[in-house]
Amino acid sequence: MFVLRQCLTLGTKSSVRNFAAATNLVNVKINEDTGVVIMELNKPPVNSLNYELLEAMHRTLVKLENERCSGMILTSSSPNTFSAGLDLLEMYKPTVDKARKFWGMLQNTWIKLYSAPYPTVAAINGHSPAGGCLLAMSCEYRIMVPKKKIGLNETQLGIVAPQWFQDCMKNIIGSRQAEKALIAGTLFSSEEAAKIGLIDELATDKEDLMKKAHDFMDEQLGLPPLARSTVKIGFRKDTLNRLINSREVDTKYFIDFIFQPKVQESLEMYLQALKKK
Amino acid sequence: MFVLRQCLTLGTKSSVRNFAAATNLVNVKINEDTGVVIMELNKPPVNSLNYELLEAMHRTLVKLENERCSGMILTSSSPNTFSAGLDLLEMYKPTVDKARKFWGMLQNTWIKLYSAPYPTVAAINGHSPAGGCLLAMSCEYRIMVPKKKIGLNETQLGIVAPQWFQDCMKNIIGSRQAEKALIAGTLFSSEEAAKIGLIDELATDKEDLMKKAHDFMDEQLGLPPLARSTVKIGFRKDTLNRLINSREVDTKYFIDFIFQPKVQESLEMYLQALKKK
Amino acid sequence: MFVLRQCLTLGTKSSVRNFAAATNLVNVKINEDTGVVIMELNKPPVNSLNYELLEAMHRTLVKLENERCSGMILTSSSPNTFSAGLDLLEMYKPTVDKARKFWGMLQNTWIKLYSAPYPTVAAINGHSPAGGCLLAMSCEYRIMVPKKKIGLNETQLGIVAPQWFQDCMKNIIGSRQAEKALIAGTLFSSEEAAKIGLIDELATDKEDLMKKAHDFMDEQLGLPPLARSTVKIGFRKDTLNRLINSREVDTKYFIDFIFQPKVQESLEMYLQALKKK
Repeated sequence: MFVLRQCLTLGTKSSVRNFAAATNLVNVKINEDTGVVIMELNKPPVNSLNYELLEAMHRTLVKLENERCSGMILTSSSPNTFSAGLDLLEMYKPTVDKARKFWGMLQNTWIKLYSAPYPTVAAINGHSPAGGCLLAMSCEYRIMVPKKKIGLNETQLGIVAPQWFQDCMKNIIGSRQAEKALIAGTLFSSEEAAKIGLIDELATDKEDLMKKAHDFMDEQLGLPPLARSTVKIGFRKDTLNRLINSREVDTKYFIDFIFQPKVQESLEMYLQALKKK
Repeated sequence: MFVLRQCLTLGTKSSVRNFAAATNLVNVKINEDTGVVIMELNKPPVNSLNYELLEAMHRTLVKLENERCSGMILTSSSPNTFSAGLDLLEMYKPTVDKARKFWGMLQNTWIKLYSAPYPTVAAINGHSPAGGCLLAMSCEYRIMVPKKKIGLNETQLGIVAPQWFQDCMKNIIGSRQAEKALIAGTLFSSEEAAKIGLIDELATDKEDLMKKAHDFMDEQLGLPPLARSTVKIGFRKDTLNRLINSREVDTKYFIDFIFQPKVQESLEMYLQALKKK
Repeated sequence: MFVLRQCLTLGTKSSVRNFAAATNLVNVKINEDTGVVIMELNKPPVNSLNYELLEAMHRTLVKLENERCSGMILTSSSPNTFSAGLDLLEMYKPTVDKARKFWGMLQNTWIKLYSAPYPTVAAINGHSPAGGCLLAMSCEYRIMVPKKKIGLNETQLGIVAPQWFQDCMKNIIGSRQAEKALIAGTLFSSEEAAKIGLIDELATDKEDLMKKAHDFMDEQLGLPPLARSTVKIGFRKDTLNRLINSREVDTKYFIDFIFQPKVQESLEMYLQALKKK
């Protein structure tokens, strides 16, 4: 642990300092004593994942890696939503170039988060559908407040979750539960998610959520970091390599999909309905 | 769904019509309003899977695919048995040619059933050992009446369930449970099967069984069919390809096995014992 | 079963006889009536796995295979420990040659145990960390006395369990549970181990342990041995081949690891602390 602490003592005075202030899309606070980072998604109202938010997350993850943070808690500043998933505006009438950049940044961000050498825990303080569920599943441990929804619900929208989204779910809840959930595009309540193992712990409220997240982190900080991260990466390398070795195919699949006239029509209808609300 | 309904309105007047009347080994009824098909195995007394029954099933599945049925419920006309599994008479003193045709039809039927694009549910209204269990496991969802038996019990008969039978079980109940069940050739009671996830739901009786089957089907019919089937096939393609890429080896293994003098002796003893009953 | 009994009637008079008396590191008793062998690790105080104990186990396993024993119960003569795992003295200032021989014998012993054609059950009568857990996991079934500890706790010691240790655990408790346990190096109580499926049954005491082990064995002896062992090997072949095809890499990894000056320092400190006790 001493190595990490060394890296993080960068001359600030308070024990908690702000980080990456170049953007306010992601609030990052480091506890200088422990090296634990809280990374709070801050794109109101529902942290929809557009290029700018993903880019801010990616930049933060690169920085954390170089500063060797000792652990990261991922959460949200939104009162009811962890993240609503991919921003549909990124898919509505984009140029090929813009769509390609967006998808590439999603891939980049996921690769960094999924392969982070330090312990990661999702403090899921609100709804977490689709891409929001992916972020949660990419952490090592998931704790969630009651009575919210989580799941890969792509099927319900008429689309198919990418293979790496599906792989993340299979790794957590097993093949049969994942098959059922992905075919139906199930959104689980927090309570159901705890039952099938999609989340690891249920918190009573937001305060309890952060307490439990820190408890998990404390346990992990007591472990030898190199052995810990070697085991973690060993478990995740097949899933990582599956995407890394097919990034171009995965991107092409996304682009071919969104450029279908029917998909653009659906998006237009959906976005107009949202506007009226 | 409108596409399916269109395909199925073939000029009949009643809302449920018979289908594939060329054989009575399989009763097929379509609800013209929903496109849901009930496929009832009807080879008394126990739906043992011989060439003719498999061929009738296969022909029906091909037809359903072309007519794009919206969903299929697999059940049995027998009062106590879903299917007793492969017909041993097909293995007793066959010609190589006959054995090869039989096994090939079993493979064909399984490939069609396992890869059906529409939702499939097994309404297991009786015992379902060995090949009967395979049929049930090849559907997407399993509901079963109480106090019957289900499982791959091949080991108890001194034979080994083919790899694809084993793969189906592993995909449903996981590696460890499947290892124990397949080594011991366990026949589970309906209640035990529900506990380990080999079946998804326990019905109280036959009426409840069909109600629950229709409930599951209704849920599935509410989902966008193309996204649904794409996810399903994604989950099943490895298991399908494993057989498709080794059909000849799989067939040769079966034929070498049944032509062993010891196996023929065992079959003779077993069949004579059955006759006396 | 008659074949096995034939092989084992070697002219002794008592129904239980000693076996492999050339070493007392492993007590081996055969029940001549059933062919069931009890293999008791007997290297006080805690059955730490050094070259000699592994070699005695390996020699016994080869002998059992040739004599086609009908089943084997693995247990320990120690009052509180099944096996404490690998003997650290084998890693402290060894020659490359000695380290290589040690690791090769561990691989040999595991391959024989994991692929044994007869049923194997671990009667875990005490603590079973690290290499002790590997031995237990390599049997087909695990029964354990209450209030002891079992697990792959390598991470806690700053080291990484070899891939084949990890594979054994994944096969038993599934990917997600194994990921959590291996990242944290969790030592489970007997009760927790039963809950997640790391052990199959909890015994009330040592007498009950041996009774339950014999009950499991009786069930297995009722099954056709060839079908039984074919299914077993089918389930284990991928894990076995993964090591067999990378033995040299696996050995090199071990040797490179223990020859690191930091590792030797840690071992020295640890062994001196043990001496003082």
